[in-house]
Amino acid sequence: MDPTDPVAILAGLIRCPSVTPREGGALAFLGALLSREGFEVARPVFEEAGSEPVENLFARSGGEGPHLVFAGHTDVVPPGDLGDWSRDPFAAEIVDGEMIGRGAVDMKGGIAAFVAAHGRYVRKNGAQKGRVSFLITGDEEGPAVNGTVKLLDWAKTRGERFDACLVGEPTNPDALGDMIKIGRRGSLSAEVRITGRQGHVAYPHLADNPVRAAVAIADALLASPLDEGTETFQPSNLEITAIETGNASVNVIPARCSIFFNVRFNDTWSVETLKAELAARVERGAAADRLRPGRAPASCELLWRERPSAAFSTRPGALTEALVAAVEETTGRRPQLSTSGGTSDARFIKDHCPVIEFGLVGRTMHMSNERVALSELQGLTDIYEAFIARWFAAHA
Amino acid sequence: MDPTDPVAILAGLIRCPSVTPREGGALAFLGALLSREGFEVARPVFEEAGSEPVENLFARSGGEGPHLVFAGHTDVVPPGDLGDWSRDPFAAEIVDGEMIGRGAVDMKGGIAAFVAAHGRYVRKNGAQKGRVSFLITGDEEGPAVNGTVKLLDWAKTRGERFDACLVGEPTNPDALGDMIKIGRRGSLSAEVRITGRQGHVAYPHLADNPVRAAVAIADALLASPLDEGTETFQPSNLEITAIETGNASVNVIPARCSIFFNVRFNDTWSVETLKAELAARVERGAAADRLRPGRAPASCELLWRERPSAAFSTRPGALTEALVAAVEETTGRRPQLSTSGGTSDARFIKDHCPVIEFGLVGRTMHMSNERVALSELQGLTDIYEAFIARWFAAHA
Repeated sequence: MDPTDPVAILAGLIRCPSVTPREGGALAFLGALLSREGFEVARPVFEEAGSEPVENLFARSGGEGPHLVFAGHTDVVPPGDLGDWSRDPFAAEIVDGEMIGRGAVDMKGGIAAFVAAHGRYVRKNGAQKGRVSFLITGDEEGPAVNGTVKLLDWAKTRGERFDACLVGEPTNPDALGDMIKIGRRGSLSAEVRITGRQGHVAYPHLADNPVRAAVAIADALLASPLDEGTETFQPSNLEITAIETGNASVNVIPARCSIFFNVRFNDTWSVETLKAELAARVERGAAADRLRPGRAPASCELLWRERPSAAFSTRPGALTEALVAAVEETTGRRPQLSTSGGTSDARFIKDHCPVIEFGLVGRTMHMSNERVALSELQGLTDIYEAFIARWFAAHA
Repeated sequence: MDPTDPVAILAGLIRCPSVTPREGGALAFLGALLSREGFEVARPVFEEAGSEPVENLFARSGGEGPHLVFAGHTDVVPPGDLGDWSRDPFAAEIVDGEMIGRGAVDMKGGIAAFVAAHGRYVRKNGAQKGRVSFLITGDEEGPAVNGTVKLLDWAKTRGERFDACLVGEPTNPDALGDMIKIGRRGSLSAEVRITGRQGHVAYPHLADNPVRAAVAIADALLASPLDEGTETFQPSNLEITAIETGNASVNVIPARCSIFFNVRFNDTWSVETLKAELAARVERGAAADRLRPGRAPASCELLWRERPSAAFSTRPGALTEALVAAVEETTGRRPQLSTSGGTSDARFIKDHCPVIEFGLVGRTMHMSNERVALSELQGLTDIYEAFIARWFAAHA
């Protein structure tokens, strides 16, 4: 296999059915390829009580000097109903100039492009003056417990220090060059659990309906915008994702009612200041409910869901400049610097080094007939190669 | 069996395990007893597609003249966990002067007392100058589709005309003589079904969260009391019994959200005027939601649940006076005339003749170890006997 051909590499990766959390041969394929390219390859396996062991890969090349790490994942979401696919999702067939397969854009395509880009760079310029590493997990689409977080700690323990990281997730809404992600909003989820007293609807004075407090609290949560956004970020946003009473009988006042919500928030807030604001809103709603005539105080608990993530953004500097210039040089387009969208593993990496994200066009990710145009895959390879050149030139 | 002994009759009825909708021998037992007392007994069976056939009983005695009907049911709710009972719920054992058994108060005890009361009356006074009937269903505790409603129509078709009805359901909160029910509030249930557009919480502009509209609509439903009550009735009351989104994922904006509510209402409202008021409140909430910035109009349907019932009350007159006097004469206490509590089959009977309700103390109904003090059963028999005498005297 030609290690500078992203199409051949992507075909090899797609043919490994690495549906999360299965390794499916994908890390073995990638490890063998990088070994042949002179990388030292390690394959740490992480596990935890209650979760399946997950395979990961760390591969490093080069000697002393600045250290650039490419981060990503080989696990893919399940293909879903095979009847919805025009081709086998693990066959990597090419139809009308596009390769069809699960993971084509999210994100085996990004990995294939970076491997090929690095191969082209060293063949033209000799080894980079510094280090290039691959930090690849098999647990990004799943619980993400035995993946990037542990792999970063594992590398740190072994003395690895990174100067910059590029995450190869799909970032472009419509066309290659649209958008670089320079940060992400934070995410915080919670349940407000309101406990009342069950009873018959004909005798409300013998019961305490928790739905009344729930409505007042939901009202208070939605009452006003959390902020107006910042220069780097769009406004923070709260969505109530569910209200549940679990009561099927129209004659019965329920004993409990829960509100579930999620906030995507910008750097106006830390996790702690946001929790305080939300707790104050919940209390304001509960207090409004207590003002209603004849109301017993609602018993209400605010339960934070595990693993909130804070908002972060990478300051303008050599990393962003190198990538913007590489995109402009290759596509002639100036990419938007964005912090929009969901969370990604960049939220873990930002604690270790500056991180940005750039990859393919995301339009078909997680859908049936996920596919990438071969011209776009070659274009991304060109951008990555120019980026490697510019980043090491800036650090020479 | 002594047909004037309510204890023996109740024991016979309890020993028939007539868990709704099973006849369990209870109507056969009652029919045989009434036949021996000179009643003409009919046992119509009603059924409907999708529901089980249900047995009922109509028994009539006497000739031309005013017609008094006693209404009730022999079906009982299931006993639940037998381990919660100190005695077999179908053995009618007597412990410390109380008979224990499912249906003891709701409402085989009421039937036993009326049969015995009528037996005593005719033995003392000769046949009443008019008619006495029993209108007894086996479908009150269940769906109530093949019971009182159809039995009333069945009787009407056969030329029966009733001048007054006494329902023997338990009505006393604490002691015999506390309370006569002279009417009932109406009941109306509905679902507000709000349809939005599902999406990822990180991309709310691509979705339309129906929970926001649901909160605004719930707010509008609860905003102000429906009324202040009337001379005969307590204030109308709305309870939201459930809000459901059916969404388990904290990352997903749900596609739909439903509010379920029930209103118990007084004679300030007809079913139609109340529906109009509730529809206006739902529209007010939906309109408030549409005022929020960037909101698509929520698609919202108001679906009325089947079989609402209107509020009704029986005007003061001979029926109420006869019963109040009978209670006072027997217990020395003046009963409260009330319209509180849930619905009963009286809501169907009120379309045929004036109806009131009086029976045992309801405290143990639907509970394990349901039981009646034998002295209370005798007391109710005395009241019923005095009521029969007074009612026919008033109509002589």
